[in-house]
Amino acid sequence: MVRRHAAARSEAEHGDDDGHEAMHRLALLARFTSDKAALTRLYLTPEHKAAAGQVEAWMREAGLATRLDATGNVVGRLEGQTKDAPAVLIGSHIDTVRNAGKYDGNLGVVVAIQAMKRLKREGLGLPFAVEVIAFGDEEGVRFPVTLTGSKAVAGIFDPATLEAKDHDGVTLFEALKSFGCDPGKILAIKRDPEKVVGYVEVHIEQGPVLEAHGLPVGVVTAISGASRLKVAIHGVAGHAGTVPMNLRHDAVAAAAEMILAVERVALLRPDVVATVGEIEVPAGAVNTIAANAQFSIDVRSPSDGLRHRTLREIRRAFEAIAAYRSVYFKMTSFYDVEAAVCSSAIVRALERSVAANHVSPFRLASGAGHDGLAMAKLAPFGMLFVRCKGGVSHNPAESVETEDVRKATDVLADFLLSLEPKKIRR
Amino acid sequence: MVRRHAAARSEAEHGDDDGHEAMHRLALLARFTSDKAALTRLYLTPEHKAAAGQVEAWMREAGLATRLDATGNVVGRLEGQTKDAPAVLIGSHIDTVRNAGKYDGNLGVVVAIQAMKRLKREGLGLPFAVEVIAFGDEEGVRFPVTLTGSKAVAGIFDPATLEAKDHDGVTLFEALKSFGCDPGKILAIKRDPEKVVGYVEVHIEQGPVLEAHGLPVGVVTAISGASRLKVAIHGVAGHAGTVPMNLRHDAVAAAAEMILAVERVALLRPDVVATVGEIEVPAGAVNTIAANAQFSIDVRSPSDGLRHRTLREIRRAFEAIAAYRSVYFKMTSFYDVEAAVCSSAIVRALERSVAANHVSPFRLASGAGHDGLAMAKLAPFGMLFVRCKGGVSHNPAESVETEDVRKATDVLADFLLSLEPKKIRR
Repeated sequence: MVRRHAAARSEAEHGDDDGHEAMHRLALLARFTSDKAALTRLYLTPEHKAAAGQVEAWMREAGLATRLDATGNVVGRLEGQTKDAPAVLIGSHIDTVRNAGKYDGNLGVVVAIQAMKRLKREGLGLPFAVEVIAFGDEEGVRFPVTLTGSKAVAGIFDPATLEAKDHDGVTLFEALKSFGCDPGKILAIKRDPEKVVGYVEVHIEQGPVLEAHGLPVGVVTAISGASRLKVAIHGVAGHAGTVPMNLRHDAVAAAAEMILAVERVALLRPDVVATVGEIEVPAGAVNTIAANAQFSIDVRSPSDGLRHRTLREIRRAFEAIAAYRSVYFKMTSFYDVEAAVCSSAIVRALERSVAANHVSPFRLASGAGHDGLAMAKLAPFGMLFVRCKGGVSHNPAESVETEDVRKATDVLADFLLSLEPKKIRR
Repeated sequence: MVRRHAAARSEAEHGDDDGHEAMHRLALLARFTSDKAALTRLYLTPEHKAAAGQVEAWMREAGLATRLDATGNVVGRLEGQTKDAPAVLIGSHIDTVRNAGKYDGNLGVVVAIQAMKRLKREGLGLPFAVEVIAFGDEEGVRFPVTLTGSKAVAGIFDPATLEAKDHDGVTLFEALKSFGCDPGKILAIKRDPEKVVGYVEVHIEQGPVLEAHGLPVGVVTAISGASRLKVAIHGVAGHAGTVPMNLRHDAVAAAAEMILAVERVALLRPDVVATVGEIEVPAGAVNTIAANAQFSIDVRSPSDGLRHRTLREIRRAFEAIAAYRSVYFKMTSFYDVEAAVCSSAIVRALERSVAANHVSPFRLASGAGHDGLAMAKLAPFGMLFVRCKGGVSHNPAESVETEDVRKATDVLADFLLSLEPKKIRR
């Protein structure tokens, strides 16, 4: 309670400065872009290198011992009161999508450094080590691979991905060398699970839920698992003027009914979202009853069981629709990723820190993927979401409030000060 | 009754020959194609010229005086017992779509000649003239104009269309000259309505209705009017993983519900068909809630009033869907053609001839367009539909039964023999 009291004092004295400084730093980071008109910072590019240098400087200022690891992650370590004690890892990523917003990823790195800077300023030591990590490849835009840095740290990096090529034919291996990294040392990045207390990440929500609830932050329960499928429908082509409505086997009408079934099945369940984002009518024409239609389905849930039950129910609905319309359909899964469930001990600890900062604790799942998907393989993990305007992300319109960033810094600092490492389990 | 009795005797003695000869001639005509692997015979091409020559030879053999008119129509005339008496016009078209079937259009020309050949063989004179016309441009594939020949005969040809160009930049004017026609004489083709009793066309149904009713022929009540529209929906883009189902404004889900509404409104009404044949999701992605979706609507009905009521009901359904989904939509009409209603006197006369040939009279609308759309502007018109397999047309799989072609010839011959011109009104 002494520590929490100290943090509360800190908030009153320095909180506003932390919020504004973090926002200022996020604006500075946004200048490291390959495109003057839009923020674009892909993995292992010169602008990634420049951003990494800036982050490293801020880490040093916050008292961390820094290094660039063999995948281009910037790592800043503060030893605990005991030398070589297990570390709490905190961080996020500093690569972006094309035409990105300023907060996705970068916010988590800046807030982590800001929290460490506050602890240093307050002279508050911790009984465990802390490592702040700025991962370099969360978005997976440049190469057809993703989470390179966090997979390496978690010990699940696949060396075969070094042969992956970007749009210009440059391999990941070559790009790492150009960046100043030694790909031969990537496997050595793997952390000893015994030396890691857990992994915690602050990230913008990228959704509208916190805004809808009027909350600045929320505690993540899991990163949802996701299934992606293609559905192809085969009906019978016909003349739009000559085939009566009740003699048709219209692939478009069948697709429409199936798309509404996807929506209805997901609407009936909390903790499931399902989306049809693509439809195509090959050889479609205004005056032709379509023989063929195709669409995609994306289903996500923090519960893998619920996700798979949802898929079975969608299939049953499709079977009924196809039967009475006398059309055929084929569902093909092309992507299936399991959910990564957050450590309940970390969830509870984050909730206590949220409450200590006068915010109602609120749990939500992450529908988007994060470095936590990889880090969950290494250690207990947790995430704190920050409200963002309209749920918009991957877009220059991404927006967060300074006050919310300050609150996230407060919660993260309190979490570190209150943490009892021996209580943290998956 | 003497005439009908004679025709009935003719059927017994020669009907089978007429069916087989017509089928043989249709196979011969199919050899006039620009593409050895598929039947393609576009307006004013060498293969059109060759087919016109063949048709002209068959007309002469049937006792008709022939000529090629200024739009490339082949016209064969048999004078009535009084010189220069008003004429019954019968015919169809001999141009085809690309990769066509053998029967669309060509069947009506061949059956008309076959009926005239039978009357000659039987020595049966008529109190009125008959003109068999093989129109050259019903499909409108080569030039961005259609019904050139029938519009000229009906007196509604627009000379501005002579400047229309084909894919190679050849104008209709130039193509007519190359074909041996004098475009300057097109306006003179217009018939004096006083000299026309009516226009009658035999055509394959291009739909599955006669087949579903087990009937070889049916009598057309009208060529349906048609409306075509584009619908654009504007919702809100979102991340497929992070936006809860009940906070979405999904353009694809809204489109799906609207497409089913189009289907439902049409299913609830006899004499209306409505089709969504095209959908597009601009910038659609498997993991994105779509902001925009577009689709087409085609609505047809033999009743223009019913067609317009249907469009209003579709719009009202869309307004309700858009309101509760909080999306916007815009409907834009880009095509609106009125129905052409058949002469009830011709419909009744054709029904009597159908019944006289031991087939249950059956009425149906034509959902597809025909030369009758233009000819209706000149004179009372009617059509006899012939059953086709599976309703398939505009496709090499187009198929008719010899027996049904014989029946169509019988009905047309009986119609001519029974016709009382003074009773024919619109």
